[in-house]
Amino acid sequence: MNHKLIFLLLFVIGSVQGQAPTHANQDLQLMPWPQEISVNSSDFMITPEFNVFIDGEVAASSRIFKAATRFIRYMTDKSGVFVVKGFPNTKNSKASPASLRIYFEEKAELVMGIDESYTLSVSKEGIEIHSKTDVGAMHGLSSLLQLIKVKEGSYVFSGADIKDEPRFVWRGLMMDVARHFMPVDVVKRNLEAMALVKLNVFHWHLSDDQGFRVETKTLPELYQLASDGQYYTQEQIRDIVRFADDRGIRVVPEFDVPGHGTAFLTAYPELGSKKGMVYSLERYAGIFDPTLDPTNEKTYVFLDNLFKEVAPLFPDAYFHIGGDENEGKHWSENQRIQQFMKDNHLKDNHELQTFFNIKLGKILAKYGKSLMGWEEIMTENMPKTALIHSWRGINEGVEPGQSLVDAAKNGYRTILSNGYYIDLLLSVEEHYLVDPMPAVPLSEEERKRILGGEATMWSELVTALTIDSRIWPRTAAIAERFWSNKEVRDVESMHIRLNSMSRFLELAGVQHMSAKEYIFRNIANFQDTHALRTLSQISEPFKIYSRNAGGTQYKSYAPFTLFADACTADAVSVRPFRKAVNQYVSHGDSGSKELIINDLKKWQDVDRQLSLIEAQAPLVSRIRPYSKRVYGITTLLLDGLQDTGLTSMQIKELEEFINSKEDPALNLDVELAISKELLQLATFLTK
Amino acid sequence: MNHKLIFLLLFVIGSVQGQAPTHANQDLQLMPWPQEISVNSSDFMITPEFNVFIDGEVAASSRIFKAATRFIRYMTDKSGVFVVKGFPNTKNSKASPASLRIYFEEKAELVMGIDESYTLSVSKEGIEIHSKTDVGAMHGLSSLLQLIKVKEGSYVFSGADIKDEPRFVWRGLMMDVARHFMPVDVVKRNLEAMALVKLNVFHWHLSDDQGFRVETKTLPELYQLASDGQYYTQEQIRDIVRFADDRGIRVVPEFDVPGHGTAFLTAYPELGSKKGMVYSLERYAGIFDPTLDPTNEKTYVFLDNLFKEVAPLFPDAYFHIGGDENEGKHWSENQRIQQFMKDNHLKDNHELQTFFNIKLGKILAKYGKSLMGWEEIMTENMPKTALIHSWRGINEGVEPGQSLVDAAKNGYRTILSNGYYIDLLLSVEEHYLVDPMPAVPLSEEERKRILGGEATMWSELVTALTIDSRIWPRTAAIAERFWSNKEVRDVESMHIRLNSMSRFLELAGVQHMSAKEYIFRNIANFQDTHALRTLSQISEPFKIYSRNAGGTQYKSYAPFTLFADACTADAVSVRPFRKAVNQYVSHGDSGSKELIINDLKKWQDVDRQLSLIEAQAPLVSRIRPYSKRVYGITTLLLDGLQDTGLTSMQIKELEEFINSKEDPALNLDVELAISKELLQLATFLTK
Repeated sequence: MNHKLIFLLLFVIGSVQGQAPTHANQDLQLMPWPQEISVNSSDFMITPEFNVFIDGEVAASSRIFKAATRFIRYMTDKSGVFVVKGFPNTKNSKASPASLRIYFEEKAELVMGIDESYTLSVSKEGIEIHSKTDVGAMHGLSSLLQLIKVKEGSYVFSGADIKDEPRFVWRGLMMDVARHFMPVDVVKRNLEAMALVKLNVFHWHLSDDQGFRVETKTLPELYQLASDGQYYTQEQIRDIVRFADDRGIRVVPEFDVPGHGTAFLTAYPELGSKKGMVYSLERYAGIFDPTLDPTNEKTYVFLDNLFKEVAPLFPDAYFHIGGDENEGKHWSENQRIQQFMKDNHLKDNHELQTFFNIKLGKILAKYGKSLMGWEEIMTENMPKTALIHSWRGINEGVEPGQSLVDAAKNGYRTILSNGYYIDLLLSVEEHYLVDPMPAVPLSEEERKRILGGEATMWSELVTALTIDSRIWPRTAAIAERFWSNKEVRDVESMHIRLNSMSRFLELAGVQHMSAKEYIFRNIANFQDTHALRTLSQISEPFKIYSRNAGGTQYKSYAPFTLFADACTADAVSVRPFRKAVNQYVSHGDSGSKELIINDLKKWQDVDRQLSLIEAQAPLVSRIRPYSKRVYGITTLLLDGLQDTGLTSMQIKELEEFINSKEDPALNLDVELAISKELLQLATFLTK
Repeated sequence: MNHKLIFLLLFVIGSVQGQAPTHANQDLQLMPWPQEISVNSSDFMITPEFNVFIDGEVAASSRIFKAATRFIRYMTDKSGVFVVKGFPNTKNSKASPASLRIYFEEKAELVMGIDESYTLSVSKEGIEIHSKTDVGAMHGLSSLLQLIKVKEGSYVFSGADIKDEPRFVWRGLMMDVARHFMPVDVVKRNLEAMALVKLNVFHWHLSDDQGFRVETKTLPELYQLASDGQYYTQEQIRDIVRFADDRGIRVVPEFDVPGHGTAFLTAYPELGSKKGMVYSLERYAGIFDPTLDPTNEKTYVFLDNLFKEVAPLFPDAYFHIGGDENEGKHWSENQRIQQFMKDNHLKDNHELQTFFNIKLGKILAKYGKSLMGWEEIMTENMPKTALIHSWRGINEGVEPGQSLVDAAKNGYRTILSNGYYIDLLLSVEEHYLVDPMPAVPLSEEERKRILGGEATMWSELVTALTIDSRIWPRTAAIAERFWSNKEVRDVESMHIRLNSMSRFLELAGVQHMSAKEYIFRNIANFQDTHALRTLSQISEPFKIYSRNAGGTQYKSYAPFTLFADACTADAVSVRPFRKAVNQYVSHGDSGSKELIINDLKKWQDVDRQLSLIEAQAPLVSRIRPYSKRVYGITTLLLDGLQDTGLTSMQIKELEEFINSKEDPALNLDVELAISKELLQLATFLTK
């Protein structure tokens, strides 16, 4: 039986096109899920002889050569196999073909909309990737890594045929490095993770009230006075841009103007809209008043100098100028600015900001950049060349993503971030089901203007230590939303595959797991961390910015090594416990009851364990009021489960216990993530 | 009672000068131990009001300002206290003095031999650091951080008065980034850790047979052809040098010539000593033959160009030129070179190498550098300006550190690395008791020529993931040897304090703890890691290069994510077990017996636990033969302990079990670190 025939036979086992994972391929841990996939049982075993061939003239410094080298390292690290050849070959022999053969037609210049498609076939005979561009081939390598699984005691690549391409051209992650600075290695490990889930735009929020993060040789005061010494040198920026380019990721920088301007004005107060104001870097979180003066010609001279120097650092066509949340308070208070508006027939602050944006757009154009900004820039006279970044929603009192629809209808290209605010610390489910394509009638042309979306990681409450655990793994599910067919939306399947992705991302260097353990060790002062880990599995940090309500509890240099920082969205014990409770409440089966009792006992015991380490761990004392409450709740329920149910008095007591999580005196900034399930169980147990 | 009086009264409690920790101060976790210390019970509590004052005109970009800012962050992260002021003040008020007040006389230019002394006083009234230089003050900050302890449920700075200065001026760590490349962040976190233990020289081994790691614009082939794309850009080097300077650390670069020259010759084969040889980057570990041709004038033109470009990147006065392990094989084989030696009256390869070194020294001098090299450069005609790096010992068939004595007697300045080869993976005790000052009679002048020492971290068997766990915590004990009084050599005290330092270093970002857990998760394929952790606590990686005997098992890109990579020298369960066995064997007390039984049961159970995860974790299968052996040994001993001792047959069986660790088929590259104790116990239990 020849190779092709096997291939055809295998193909029929389970070919699925543009759909969610099915029974036939449910054990595959791919994310984003590919457009077309058929699985077969002809797996490729990883052995020391594994080697890689890349077709064509490929220099050792090329993107695909480096990607294939990283691929070999990943495979080696994961499998422990001692491969004989640690680098790809660019020559192949027909007599003994390479294990993995990569064919592509051209090296892509990294711009929006390049061909990212690829095909990947794995069988025991070998592995092949075909693509138009090297970037497509790299996506194939990411998929291939995700096909590693255990079979009969060995690591293998799961047999499969994949034909794949992205649904959207703009698949981004925004990282705020202004509120808390993120060193080069933090950016790099997140870029590496982005590549593995096929994200292709790194939106770099480089300035805000809390800091300006770029070395500027012509305007040195910016980084010298407005960064606390925490900024990227120009060479570091080039290094990061190269690193991203190597992974097929465009870098879109952002300087937020004219609002969010405290850092600019700390360095250059003469450009501010409030005369005589002494500006200094903001240490709190929130929306502040300092704003560049759009009526001062010096502002444009400054911006021209700035972009002239900075634009060449970033090869991408787009420059994001922020433009959000400017309430124009200082404009309204300034007589001279008011007069300017009258003289220029600018009827309100919005028109003044448009006046500013149009002038800024011309400066950017001079340096080869297209303007992109948050949705507030979309005013009547804004040129249609601007790219509109839709972000507002319910929290801002508007229809979620309305500006996306408006932009598309008004002739602007646009991307969506509303629904992808991962710093809200919501469950991944909340983001996963948001689609960049709105559910309203749009013409084909209007739909084409919707380019994709971006997850946004604002950094008021994260540091280099904790940012990974806020971005990952949830952003992998958002990446699936941006890449995969819109029908791929099975939450159960997503959760299972996300769990695998979380592990896969750790291999890539993302520290979402290790940082948690680090914080536990610090809290426990290097005593036993078991109880802290257990407690974190049912605890989630306060959501939707309620952790730092008012923005004043945490300064930028506050400790972010607390229990809330070790907790994450989607606490891992919640879903299994929910399942057990549902099962028990619906069917009353003893297996579920046993699971519930085991869980409750585990959580009940946390307080006792913490009491043993408290004397040598002052930070544990802060947690005890919470662990005591957990003790009380679980004790009550265990009694109810073991005896004859709960009295209404006890239910009330339980409700009070649970609701007291809002007690500000507790001040732990986490909530008990199984509250609903506990109340459900209690109600069921009512006598 | 006024402040001074309290101070005087407290001072008498326990002042110790130039001595080891005593009963009075044994709970202090300082390392290196200071020259003089007196403890008092007047601790300073860490509160939100904690603030720092620095005396004098100090810019935000200055070394001490940045160090004090980092200090506040450490204190905040550790204690969880929300301080109001996250940055130091440069103004102080007498009415309400700052909590910590730093006074120094001058900013040091970082050269060998600057004043690094400081005094530190902590009482509940406040904390003061006084020093001649800012570098001395930074050492004071490192000591102060180590004084953080728990008292009555709060973090405090332990009351103490310290007067301190280093014993040696050269306290180094060498990092080999050629065998395995170490990215910028790896270097930086190790520099940070070095500063915390008061090491002051980072010796950067930048070239070897396996790679050349520096961007060279005039000789681009070097990094393009001989680095696998893994090199430092010049800007990254400047960045690291700045980072080190900020921490009071000198950077001494090394290019190893004329031997260890494969990388050079991969780029420039025409400079090699063997005609027509095709050189390519070495993938194995060992000593290789490729050698620069010292008789070829082009070699010196090349080196002149190289140092001309590279020297300005490194402000330090010294440039290390290697010079070790050149066996001159290719010289002996080359007729032309032999003729050259005859013509120039060079009687052997040593003289030829000296000829080379002298010419090289002149090139270095041209660019403002003094030559430093491994001890082999110390030949008859070598100028006395050279600095001799003593490294050979028993493994090389010579008296350990003999070259240090010879160098000092011959008029050379010298430092010691023999005894500090941390890549041998020996117990910290082996290094701690080696003194840089030899126990032979030397004149005062000769003694002055002995500048200090360096721990050497060769990287054949470590990667960016694992290097921290090989360097730390053991290097902290070596740092104590270089800094503290020679009488500080109590091994018990060292172990206790080293354990604290290990935790402290994790806070500094060193990943010796987290990398272990990462490897366990990878081996377990994200199942339960408990058994792996337990097993690692009695397992140590093969020592003295026996892990990779012959240098051919591991290529540079082999997997270093194996069980041996998660194990470290000084496995943590060994010392407590040893103590219990000694106690039991000497006194037969039941408490020790119980401890021993608990331990043995714990280790006995590892194999069963591993069997549960093996099916989904192929790398666990490699460990099972070892865990089965541990099961067998512990079962035998538990029987002996619970019944009536062991028969001589059983003892023999046990010995065989234990000795079979040498079985190459096992191939796990770890040894059972409690073998001696198990045999001791078995012998005691003989019927």
